[in-house]
Formats: sequence, structure tokens, C-alpha cells
Amino acid sequence: MYGAICAKAAAEMRKPNVEHYFSRCIQRVAPKSLAQATAEVVVTRKFLENFSGDQVRFMARSFSVTGDHDGQMSTGWRWPYGPSAIVAPFNFPLEIPVLQLMGALFMGNKVLFKNDSKVTVVVEQVLRMLHHCGMPKEDLDYFCGSGPTFGALLKRAQPRLTQFTGSNAIADRLVDELKGKVLLEDAGFDWKILGPFSGSRKSSIEEQLPYISFVCDQDAYASSGQKCSAQSMLFAHEDWIKEGLLAHLEELASRRNLKDLTVGPVLTATTRQVMGHMEQLLTIPGSRLLFGGKPLQESHSIPEQYGAFEPTAVWIPLDKLIMPKYFKLCSTEIFGPFQLVTEFTDVTLPDVLTACELMENHLTAAIVSDDPEFQRLILGSTVNGTTYKGLRARTTGAPQWHWFGPGGDPRGAGIGTIEAIRHVWSCHREIIDDSGPVPTSVTGWKLPPAE
Amino acid sequence: MYGAICAKAAAEMRKPNVEHYFSRCIQRVAPKSLAQATAEVVVTRKFLENFSGDQVRFMARSFSVTGDHDGQMSTGWRWPYGPSAIVAPFNFPLEIPVLQLMGALFMGNKVLFKNDSKVTVVVEQVLRMLHHCGMPKEDLDYFCGSGPTFGALLKRAQPRLTQFTGSNAIADRLVDELKGKVLLEDAGFDWKILGPFSGSRKSSIEEQLPYISFVCDQDAYASSGQKCSAQSMLFAHEDWIKEGLLAHLEELASRRNLKDLTVGPVLTATTRQVMGHMEQLLTIPGSRLLFGGKPLQESHSIPEQYGAFEPTAVWIPLDKLIMPKYFKLCSTEIFGPFQLVTEFTDVTLPDVLTACELMENHLTAAIVSDDPEFQRLILGSTVNGTTYKGLRARTTGAPQWHWFGPGGDPRGAGIGTIEAIRHVWSCHREIIDDSGPVPTSVTGWKLPPAE
Amino acid sequence: MYGAICAKAAAEMRKPNVEHYFSRCIQRVAPKSLAQATAEVVVTRKFLENFSGDQVRFMARSFSVTGDHDGQMSTGWRWPYGPSAIVAPFNFPLEIPVLQLMGALFMGNKVLFKNDSKVTVVVEQVLRMLHHCGMPKEDLDYFCGSGPTFGALLKRAQPRLTQFTGSNAIADRLVDELKGKVLLEDAGFDWKILGPFSGSRKSSIEEQLPYISFVCDQDAYASSGQKCSAQSMLFAHEDWIKEGLLAHLEELASRRNLKDLTVGPVLTATTRQVMGHMEQLLTIPGSRLLFGGKPLQESHSIPEQYGAFEPTAVWIPLDKLIMPKYFKLCSTEIFGPFQLVTEFTDVTLPDVLTACELMENHLTAAIVSDDPEFQRLILGSTVNGTTYKGLRARTTGAPQWHWFGPGGDPRGAGIGTIEAIRHVWSCHREIIDDSGPVPTSVTGWKLPPAE
Amino acid sequence: MYGAICAKAAAEMRKPNVEHYFSRCIQRVAPKSLAQATAEVVVTRKFLENFSGDQVRFMARSFSVTGDHDGQMSTGWRWPYGPSAIVAPFNFPLEIPVLQLMGALFMGNKVLFKNDSKVTVVVEQVLRMLHHCGMPKEDLDYFCGSGPTFGALLKRAQPRLTQFTGSNAIADRLVDELKGKVLLEDAGFDWKILGPFSGSRKSSIEEQLPYISFVCDQDAYASSGQKCSAQSMLFAHEDWIKEGLLAHLEELASRRNLKDLTVGPVLTATTRQVMGHMEQLLTIPGSRLLFGGKPLQESHSIPEQYGAFEPTAVWIPLDKLIMPKYFKLCSTEIFGPFQLVTEFTDVTLPDVLTACELMENHLTAAIVSDDPEFQRLILGSTVNGTTYKGLRARTTGAPQWHWFGPGGDPRGAGIGTIEAIRHVWSCHREIIDDSGPVPTSVTGWKLPPAE
Repeated sequence: MYGAICAKAAAEMRKPNVEHYFSRCIQRVAPKSLAQATAEVVVTRKFLENFSGDQVRFMARSFSVTGDHDGQMSTGWRWPYGPSAIVAPFNFPLEIPVLQLMGALFMGNKVLFKNDSKVTVVVEQVLRMLHHCGMPKEDLDYFCGSGPTFGALLKRAQPRLTQFTGSNAIADRLVDELKGKVLLEDAGFDWKILGPFSGSRKSSIEEQLPYISFVCDQDAYASSGQKCSAQSMLFAHEDWIKEGLLAHLEELASRRNLKDLTVGPVLTATTRQVMGHMEQLLTIPGSRLLFGGKPLQESHSIPEQYGAFEPTAVWIPLDKLIMPKYFKLCSTEIFGPFQLVTEFTDVTLPDVLTACELMENHLTAAIVSDDPEFQRLILGSTVNGTTYKGLRARTTGAPQWHWFGPGGDPRGAGIGTIEAIRHVWSCHREIIDDSGPVPTSVTGWKLPPAE
Repeated sequence: MYGAICAKAAAEMRKPNVEHYFSRCIQRVAPKSLAQATAEVVVTRKFLENFSGDQVRFMARSFSVTGDHDGQMSTGWRWPYGPSAIVAPFNFPLEIPVLQLMGALFMGNKVLFKNDSKVTVVVEQVLRMLHHCGMPKEDLDYFCGSGPTFGALLKRAQPRLTQFTGSNAIADRLVDELKGKVLLEDAGFDWKILGPFSGSRKSSIEEQLPYISFVCDQDAYASSGQKCSAQSMLFAHEDWIKEGLLAHLEELASRRNLKDLTVGPVLTATTRQVMGHMEQLLTIPGSRLLFGGKPLQESHSIPEQYGAFEPTAVWIPLDKLIMPKYFKLCSTEIFGPFQLVTEFTDVTLPDVLTACELMENHLTAAIVSDDPEFQRLILGSTVNGTTYKGLRARTTGAPQWHWFGPGGDPRGAGIGTIEAIRHVWSCHREIIDDSGPVPTSVTGWKLPPAE
Repeated sequence: MYGAICAKAAAEMRKPNVEHYFSRCIQRVAPKSLAQATAEVVVTRKFLENFSGDQVRFMARSFSVTGDHDGQMSTGWRWPYGPSAIVAPFNFPLEIPVLQLMGALFMGNKVLFKNDSKVTVVVEQVLRMLHHCGMPKEDLDYFCGSGPTFGALLKRAQPRLTQFTGSNAIADRLVDELKGKVLLEDAGFDWKILGPFSGSRKSSIEEQLPYISFVCDQDAYASSGQKCSAQSMLFAHEDWIKEGLLAHLEELASRRNLKDLTVGPVLTATTRQVMGHMEQLLTIPGSRLLFGGKPLQESHSIPEQYGAFEPTAVWIPLDKLIMPKYFKLCSTEIFGPFQLVTEFTDVTLPDVLTACELMENHLTAAIVSDDPEFQRLILGSTVNGTTYKGLRARTTGAPQWHWFGPGGDPRGAGIGTIEAIRHVWSCHREIIDDSGPVPTSVTGWKLPPAE
Repeated sequence: MYGAICAKAAAEMRKPNVEHYFSRCIQRVAPKSLAQATAEVVVTRKFLENFSGDQVRFMARSFSVTGDHDGQMSTGWRWPYGPSAIVAPFNFPLEIPVLQLMGALFMGNKVLFKNDSKVTVVVEQVLRMLHHCGMPKEDLDYFCGSGPTFGALLKRAQPRLTQFTGSNAIADRLVDELKGKVLLEDAGFDWKILGPFSGSRKSSIEEQLPYISFVCDQDAYASSGQKCSAQSMLFAHEDWIKEGLLAHLEELASRRNLKDLTVGPVLTATTRQVMGHMEQLLTIPGSRLLFGGKPLQESHSIPEQYGAFEPTAVWIPLDKLIMPKYFKLCSTEIFGPFQLVTEFTDVTLPDVLTACELMENHLTAAIVSDDPEFQRLILGSTVNGTTYKGLRARTTGAPQWHWFGPGGDPRGAGIGTIEAIRHVWSCHREIIDDSGPVPTSVTGWKLPPAE
């Protein structure tokens, strides 16, 4: 049934006016450019296409192994949890709810859903569309109230599984209150490493620099940095610094403006809080402001409880970064257009690995290099769940066709793909069939001794 | 490398004297018959055979999907957690440690291992054998001290993952102290349902009864009921009760004796505690003692801190069982030769489903019936991780070739099979390769607008 | 790209007028009822839904295994053949072409396509729709001429792979001319076995008979028996014969008429040929005509070169059927509303197995029984590629969500599912990456001795 | 059962004296060095380890998908063919027979086996060992006579499947006589491409050359070139030629001698035949003898019907190689220590692709380059079943842990791995279970209209 719903819903969302409606709907509540909002609608539609037809039943396929005697066979199923819950964030008001919700429903769970109360209009609209496409109204309960009320509800209901996407602090509380029956995608302090130039004959570092810089700007500042995959830390090999990387970054950041929402309000921190954090960073010896660092200068009506500041980059020397007394400060995520930049050399590469190891959250990462040995070295020392490698590597922009989620944590939840849905929304159940003939005295069976 | 170690270790354990040595070693510390102890050695050896040769690398296989442009590809890997821990129980002193440890090591984790201090001799012997077969001594740390000390150690070390097998109470504490980074197989209050006789032309219920009764006796009392899969609750359709099931069970239980360890000491409850629990049960209206219920009569030297009592069955009426005021008492697991028995009819079948739903742990279960519709009805209402169905269904005796573990819980851990090891000992890591040509102005690339 | 084409094409075909248009289009050229024609359109549409979005790339997924040293890894890919051909039959003018063609294109092959010249209008219309949905015109060449011309073309072109669906004789010639580079679904002489009544308490044989008979009628005579999966041989246990199966079959057949095309023209045999075959069968001692056996009595304008006769059943005694001198005659397929019926008992069951073993083509089969042991006995003695079991088993009506194809033949081709497409339209290619560091004298490598 | 046999047999072959016995046994009948013969024993043993324990049943695992109504489910099985045959070659007298035979037996086939009558002693010895380890004597028939007799036998028996490894000519005849029911690994004219030096900063081309040359020598001349994977054609980019590749190759070849069997008798061509072929090649304009080209100078007792000549390399200009009038001659495989060498530049690279495309057999290939774009270009234009890429790429030395077999041919057979065995030795069988309740008038079912 859900295959038919997906096929119909995707056909609806393929209509240009429906696509545009949802894009605008997203822009109303989440500050991002039209391009970014439309991308969210497209990814959601492709996800629905992926589970059209019989793909839902194919996803739930089981496997069987023959047993020790005639009529014995064991089958490994993916089984739903039954009563479960989802808590979704504000920053992708269409994509994250749909991908998570549909995943839960595909596998046969009964879901209680909540997301950020600022963006409920988007979910409400998409649910109406899904009902129109045949989704039974009773398959899903949608909770539109405050966080604490929902927390109390969950604590009493004790769902068999809760999928949470959001901040570390709330994640910890849920894990505690729900006895660990939680899968989560919590904070991401995501990093990118620009490896040494490999000496390729094909294109010089000078030719490569503009594209590499462009991807850095997108990763750090698109959607005002309010993606869980946004680049928070950039480790650049000296080759790139010498070539003028910093000037490129500054110039690209300066293109951003409020009018087309290429920079916009920050929903989880005030301007004052961010400026305070920045000032603390600038007390670290050798640190300096690369660019930004000021409240937005354009006239605007962003309320005080949100942040409004320029795309900002702060330089931290690598040897300071990894000092215990500074590392916690440096690795605190600002969920906005804010990043740290540092430099390494062939000699100080181990310090980069140390920094990666010290981080506690392992969502996305990028290893920008075409050297397989360099790639393997970094990969082998890290566990980020979604890691990009290659000269075109980025940290953001994950599509619906590959797993997206944190690594190195048994509580980690993925979204979007068959593997993610099977992992999060079902558990292994082994059903062993033993339908061989019952041994009886007629067929010569004798009672064995007790064991 | 671990493939070669497994092949050699299995070859060692295939030698009759090594097999016998380990069987006796097990009997020294865990009260079970020679048949049961030998079965443990054989299952362990077959597990090692299963991961001989290249099977360890085959188990870690990844999959890849092509991307959106030339040179882009995404690969889903199973990645080790790195620093991790295992806490194992006393009842299978060889099988559980080896299956869990080797699983962790196969996937590349670094393990800190602890098991019950009463049975360390078995692990110590098998580790020496594995070192002899080539296992590097530094791959594993073995902790031989007390539980509380180890708990404190874990709390400080915060391993990325801990696999725990044991009681509910300790499981809850670990989940709390390790922030949910725990996978576990906790208490099993396992049940069996004997379905209505289907009217088969092949064998009469009279012919089937001896075998069915024999399996019940084994499931409830083998290894003195000290298996996590032991049958704690038997729901029998009236067809079987009328046919004389209870008399058969009593007769089979009466064959058990201390001499050949077909019944033996209970390590986690004293005789007094069990008798107290039984007396409480017998206050439920309509309940009665079916057989057993007395301390072991044979002369023995079992110390006071252990239990020593006859294989026991207590009858509870189904309508009382599911009453809230009695259910918690009835579903308290006694980790020894102790079971509850009840009866249902076609009319009261829903009460059986209610009882199954009320249980909180979902390890093994058996649906003894050859009627596919009856099987589907029970399966659809339950989530036990390892469920047997068919006239030959049992609750115990899981081999190394199918998943064994609880269901319906995101914290549930399986053991033994490829799927179990991949699930418990690795996490998904997606590595996206983007090695396509870097867009440059030479090849016509122009800087796009910011987003 | 093909994922997007499928999504759009499925959305088109979901429109009621498009669905109706194709159904009528099919009826114009292939004699079947509107219900059967519409079913063909629906199955085709669901197939397209199944490969929407990213499912085409997911289908082509590869797997990787790590090697013996750093930087070595082996990947198993599914690789296209490149230049290939398809020869499709007349009886499913929409479904078979689309499922086969799209399968070939999904995997990246370049296809030369031919089907029966009587039904080209349907393919032509669907190709125009696919072009409209974005399919590049150069991906596929469509040949609309005669069989011999195409045969000569194939012989010269020697495509790397040809998928053929049709008669045995042409299959043999193609295998010869194309040096075995052919995968095929040739003739199906499909059988059904009605097993002994199991004595179920749930429903009596009297209650079951109407449904069982109805399925037999559909399997033998729907689409005038012109399905490759049509039931050509019915083995009925005496339980069913005694209960009145034959009278039921006769009554159901008598409902069929030309007006609504529940019986219609036979395209591959003339009335005279079929009557001749029947007469030969009736010379076998003990055989008799059960019903039908006459040219269609209604006034009609079916041309002489086609067949037009009533749904027909001929009784053959089992002991005669398996005689070498009769078997070849009995197992000659009439591609029309024509079946043989025989009876067996518990004692003569081995003769049924003998008959199944003597058959040369192994497409569909049905084992109508709810006894797992009976099912296993028949399954273990047969190799039919698509076998139904259970009391509701049929031989026809395969949907798009499970494999459909012959068994027991390395040349056998399946259609429709992921497994079928991967098997037919791609071959295994193992690419071993060995990008570890090159050993050099700088890193201590010394030239080893020759081997 | 076969899991236990494999475990025992591998344990036997791990004993040093058994390993040595089989190595010497191989050397008696197949001319190769002790290192090469021992490698054959080790690969065979590891293959047996891979299928120890339960891995045979795991390999045969099926998968299931739920149906459209309660009680319906479809399962895709891998099913044995039953009566089948194997024809194995002389060059790997232990490895190929064991890997192929065991694969067939694992999947439940009944096999008639034949190999080259010159090497039967090895198979006979290993069969005795397998019988000792528990293999039933009736599972396999071993035919030790002449090829024509066996051909006649096959033609009469018409096994459901025959796996053939050997020459093109015999393959064609078998395909014809067995109506295409053949899977084969026929001639391999295997090539290697040394790509342009990428300008890596890590090691210079001068440093890389010795290792690259060493691998070329091994690939072309180890086991006297009598491997189906031996390098027959070397395409070297001018970078390597300029650096002195040819001198390195000549020097390495000159180390080979008859005493330690690093060069030895050629079993399928006489010295005269090879010299004749070489002379024809040398008539091509621009061709020249690089080294070798003479009968073996050492005194020896190799009989006249075998070949005995020095490791030989002939230079052919690329533009001549791809001319239709020369290509067939150039691409004729000499199954001995004989290779062609040619040079290409960035400009003439398309000619290399043309040459690869013209070849008719697609077994192994190597792309020696660390440039992913160069690798993708070559990979995208070729279909070799086993292709190595990377600076360490080779054409020979395939282990038991990855697929080995030809590509681009539906008749292609792989050996060794799970995928290869499933592909060759089993066919897909879909078994659809429809055990839902039978619709009856009691439950409200009414007879639908005919279709």
C-alpha cells in the first residue's frame, strides 16, 4: 500500500506548482535561499519515487537458511517495533519529517511524531497531501505542542523506539528517560581537510583553487550554516594557504546577503551569544578573525531572540586547537554561518588526526585529496558516518540515495536509504520453522535420556 | 588473519581430547550434564569453522552505488567502533565468551572483556589456545575482578560500545552510566504455546504427545533451567491437557537427578528464595503445584548460597495470570528448573496474546502447531527475537547457524551469525568518493551564485 | 536517468484514460478479456514504479571485499553486455516488451528489439510514450519486419546476448546460430497437482472445491490459454475427483464465450490442427473427452489460419501418460484453451513424480496442498522456475514483484524483478583495485627470485 | 555435511607433509616451480576453509518477499541443476578440479567429472583424501578416459549443465552438442596496459620501474605462461618505454631456467608450431623480436610433442596490430611463455581501446595506473571478467577470495567465490507460498465472472 502512496505523492510533487508551493512554504519558516528550499523538495520527491511500487515490500525482504533435518529452516526477518516516536528539528522542515516518518511507516510501525513548533505548517501541508494520496489517517499521530509536554508524554508512554534529531543536551535527556531506547542524530561538528596538492599533471593548484574555495563557502555558509552537515572546521594544508585560499573564502562570503536569503537569521543562538563565543576564541594565542564577525549591517526585522550576523571565519593555530584547555571551546558548534580555519603541514598532520579523534560527534566529514594513501590514512583514523573523499568532496548536500547519519555510536540513526530505514525502523527477528515430521513410536522414535 | 586463527582453533577443538577437556572444564564451574557441556564445545567449534579462511573479510563486505556524475560513487561500509567492552554471564562459560569476543575482534574492535568470576577458568584456557593459534596478545584485555570495580572502570573509560549479557537490573544501570551506548541480551522470560491439534491425518495427538512432552521437559529443565532460552511459561491448548500432557511432564521431570547433573545447583537464587516465590504464586486463586516444589532430597554438598530444588511446575489459571495484580509476580523469572503452566481454549486464545504482549523481554518463544494461520496469528502479535514454530518447535538449543537474541528493542544484541556480528560490532559508515575531474576555468567552469 | 523516465511513465499510465487506451490497444491485437488486458497494463505500470527514482542505480549495486594488504580491495560489479537483442512474443504485447526492454536499458545495454509483427502497434505506442517521458531515441533500435530476416540479421551481428521468448523450435535454432549466447523462456507445459485433502478442521473438501475449481478454470482457459504459464496438465488426487471436481470444471468452462473474449482465437494453431491432436490423444486406451472438443459454435469472423474451438479437457489415465510411447504426445503443448486431466492416489503418487521428471520445460507449476511434507516431496523432485504451493496455488497470474522464468536450465531467463534483470542483463565483473604504495628500493623492496 | 568435510580436508592440507606431498604431486605432471605448485595447494586449502562449518548452507540462502494478502509470500531460492558435468584442464591439476567440483557438490548437484588424462593422478589423490574426510563415494563420478569418448557420453547423457574450462574449439563443439547448456571459461588472450606516469610526488617513474617490470615478467612467464590469466599482450605508454622497460623485461626473462622449472615444457604446442607463429608475426611491418625466440638451449629430455623454447617477446607497432588483416594473427593465444609488446602515446590511446574491443575473449586484464580518470576510461571500454587496476595491478595470481572468470558472455563461468558458485551451480527458483485461508461460501466468497 505505501508503495502506491509514494508513487502518487511523488507524481503530485513533480507538478511544478506543487513543487513551488512547498519551496515557498519552507522559505516562510526556515531561512534559506529558494535554491536550497527547492533542493529540499526535490530530494523529498526522489525519496518517494525510490519507494514506489513494490519497493516497500522489497525493502522488508527476509532471508532463509536450511536447517539440520528435513523440514527445518530459519528465516531472518526485519520486524517493526510497533509503538514508536520521532522528534524532528526545524532546519529541514519537509525533508527530515517525510524521510523519517515514511521510513517508520514503511516498516509497519505506529508513530507519534513531533517537530519544532516553528515549522509545523510544512508538515501539516504534506500530511494533507499524503492523506489525499491514500495514507490512512490513523497510521500516524502528530503532536504540535511544546517540547517539555512532549517529553513528559514520551516518558510515560515509553515507546519501544524513539528517533531523535537535534541537540546533544536533549538527546542525553531522552536517552536517560527512555532507558536507552533511542536512536539519534545529534550535533554535528563537521570538518573538512584540504590535503596536500598531489602534483597532478592534469590541473595546477592555481586552476583547482576557485572550485575548492567555492565548495568551502557552500559547505560553511549555505542555509546560513544551519545544516547538521555544515562545515564547522577547515583544516587546510599549507599548499592551499600559500595559493591564496583565505582571500578566496573572504571574497565568496562577501557575496552573501539577506535579500535573497543567502545569509539569514540564526534560530538557535542570538547575535550576542555568537559574538561572545567569537571573543572567547579570539583570546586564544595566535587566533585572529579572518572575516565577518559583525552583526548584519543591512536593515532587517529579525527579532532579538534570533541571531543575525555576517558569515564569519576565525583562525586558530593547530597546536593551540588540540590543547585540552582550548579544544572544548573550539569544538563547540555554533549552528549558524560560523567556522574555524587552521593550517597544517606534512609534519603537523598527526595533530589534525588528534583533533579529529578528540571530537565527540561524528556526522559528516570531507577529505579533499586525490591521493588514495592520504585518503586511507584519514579514513583509518576517523569514524564519521558520512564521509566524502576526493578533490570534489564536500560536507553538505547529501542526497536521498546514500546513507546520511553519524558513525561510531551504537545509538546512531541514519536516514533516507534502504539500509538506514531497515536499521532504524526494524529489528532482527529470527523465526525458525521446524515442520518436519513429529517423531513418534510408530516411526521408531524412542525417548532419549534426560540432559 | 582471524580466518586463519579460526581455522586452526577449530582444528584443535575437533581433536577428541581437546573437546573432552573443555567439556569437563565447563562442568567444573557450570552445573550441566556432560551432553550439555559437550554441546557447548561443539557449537563453539562450529562457530570457529564458520569464520575460517576468508569469511572474516567476506563478512565485512561493503556495497557501492554509482553517483550523479562521472567519478562519483558511494560505498556503505561496516566500520568498527574501536574501544569497546563485553560483559558475559556464567551459564555458558565457553560459548558466549568466544562467540562475542571473536565477533568483536573480527570486525576490528579493541575489546575489554569481563565475565562472571566463578567461571574464568574456561575463558583463560580458551584464550591460551587462541594465542597458540596465532591471536595477538594485545588484541584483547581480560578483566578478572569484581563486578562493581569493572562498572567503575567502564564508567570512566566510556567505551564506544558495550555488549552486556545478564540480568535486567545491571543492564539498566549500564545503560544509564554509559549513556545508552550498550547493546544487550537481558533477562528472558520465555514462553511456549502448544496450539490446538489440527486434525492431521498423519499422526494422532496420542502419537504426538510423547515427543512434544519430551521437548517441554528439555526446554524447561535441561541445564537446570539455567539457559536464557529456558521455557518459563507453558500455554497448553486444552487438546493437550485432555490427552494427559501434565502426567507426561511429571514423569519426565522425575527422571532427573543430581548424579549425572540432569538437575543441579542454581547459582543465582537460594532454595529459600525460590520456595518463597513459589508460595506467593500458590496464593493466586486456582493455582496449584503440579510437581516438584521441594528441596533436592538426594544427599549433596551444594553450598547454602546456591539453590538446590527439584524440577518444579506451578499451574496458574489463564484469567488470573493476565490480571495486573498477578502478572508481574507470574512473569518474574526464576533462573532455575522452574516453570508455570496454564491452559487455553479456542475461546480464551486472546488472553494468551494479552499475556505475551504484557511481557517485557522478548528473547525466545515457541509456537507448537502445524497450522500456518495459527502460527501467523501468534507471530503477528509478538516480537520475540528468536521464535520457533512448527510441531517440533522448542525454546532452547539454538545452534551457531541462526541469529540468537532479543527482539523489539533497539538495544537488543544478537550473537553468533554474520548478521548478528555485523549488527552488534560495526556501524554503518558511508564513504562517498568524488574523484571526478575538478571543474576549472580551463574546462569551462564558471562560479555559480551563492545559495 | 532511467529512474526519472520510469517515474514519469508510471505517472502517465496511472491516468485512467491512458490505462484504458493501452488496454483497448492490447485487445485489438491479442485476444483476451478487458480484465486480462487491463491487468497487463497495471502490471507494466507497477514495474515502472518499482524502478523509479534511484532504484536503477540501487539495482546495479556492487560489493567489495578487502584484500591482503593496505590499498587492495576487490569489487564485484554487474556489468552490461553492450550490444544485445530481444525477441518477444505476441501474447503479452505490452508487458513482456516493456519489462524486458527496460531491464536491458536499466543495466546499460544497447538493444535491438523485435516482437511478433501482429502486435507491433502496442510497442510502437508505448515507445512514443517513453520518448515523451525522456527516453533517448538512440538507446533502442526497433525492428518491425519478419522473423527470418531478423534471424539473418542476428546471425551476422552476433550480439553479445539475445533474450528470446517463444517456441522451442526457434529457441533451438537461435542457440545454434548465436553459439549459445542466448537466454530464453521457451515453451511451458505447465502442470498443477491437487494433493490429498489433509483432513483440516477448518474447512471441508466440499467447501474448498468451488474455489479450487475456479482457479483451475482460470489457469487453463483465461486469455484462451495463451499464456506461457497456462495449466496444460492437471493431476488431481482421487479425493477431488470423488468430490466432483470434473463436473465443476465443465460447468465453469461452459461460462466462457466469444463476446467478452473469455474465449477467443488461437493464434499459433488452426482448429484443424488442434482437433487432430485431440483425436490422437483419444486413441490412448482409457482416455476420453471430458468437455469441449468442438469448434466454436458462435458465429464469428476468426480467419482460417487461427484456431477457434471450445475450452477443452481430455482425460488420460496416469499409467498410460508416463509410458514412453505416449508421453511425448501427451506433453506436446497446445498454446490455447486445452488441457489434460488425470487422477492419482497415495499409491500412484510416484507416477506423478515420474511424469514431472519426464517433462523437458520447467516454467510454472502449482502444488495445491496445505501439507508441508507433501509440498516438500513434490518440490524436491521438480525444478520448475516459478512454483506455487499452498491451497490457493495457481499456475498463472504472476505479478511484477516476483521472479518469473523457467528453471533447471542455464539458458533460462527471468523477467521483472531485480534478480531477473541482474541475472539476464548483466554479467559479473570483478575489478580488483591495487593502489597500495609501489614497492621501490627506496622503501626497501628487493627483486625476488623468478617463479 | 560438506561444511564438515571441508573443515576436515583443510585441516589435513594444513599439515606440512600433506601440503608438500600435493605440491610435488602437481610438479610431477604440470611444469611449474615449487613456489607456484605450493601456491596452488594453499589456494585450494583456503577455499576449503572458506566453506567450512555452516558456510555451505549460508551460501544457499534464499530471500523472501511478502505477497498481496495474508499468507502469501514469495521466496527466491538457488536450486541445483541435478545431473551435471565438469571438464577441467591440465594446468592447475589440483585447484581447478577441487574448486569446481566442490562448488557443484555444495549446491547439491550430481557431477560427472573429467579432466586432462595427463594429470589425473592429482585428482585421484585428492578424491581419496576427501573420501577419508567423509565425502560420500556416490556423490561424484570420475571419468578417466579420452576426450572424444567423453564427448560422446555427454552428447548422449545431455546433462542439465556442463562446466567447461579449456580451448575455444572444444568449447564451441560442446555448446553445439549440448544445445547451449554449457558454462565456460575458454581461451584468455589477456592484456595489460601501462598507463602514463601521473607525475606523483611520491615516487619517480625511475623508482617504480623495477617493480612494474617484475610484475610483467611474472604475469607473462610464470608457470611458463601456462595460466589462463597469463599476460599475452602488453600495451606500454611511451613514458615506460623511454624509461627503459624493454631492457628490464629482457633481463628478468633471462633469469629463467629449466632446472628450477621457472621455464618448462609447453603442453599444448610444439616448439616448431610456436616458432612458425613467431615468424608469421615478424612479417608484419615494423615488428621485431625483443628477446627469446629460440628453442631452449639447456640440455633436456622434453619430448617432441611438447614445446620447449625461451621466454619470448615480439614487438608489434600499434597501428599494425589493429589492422583487420593482422589482428587475428596477433590475437591468437600461444599457451606458453610468449607475449606481444606495443607502445602507445596520449594521442594513440584510442587505438589501444580499439584493440581491446576487437578481442573476443575477456578473461583477465590489468590497468597499471594510479589515475582514476584513466582507469575509468579503460574500464568503461572493456568487459574483462577479472580486471586489476592500480599501480600494483597484475593479470595473474588470482586468489580464492575473489571471482575469477570471463566477462561479457552469458556463457561465462566463474570459480571460487560464493557468487561464482551460486551463479554456475544453481539456478533461480521462485517458490510462491499461498497458504492463506481458502475462500469459501462460508466465509462469504462468491464465484467471480470468467476472464
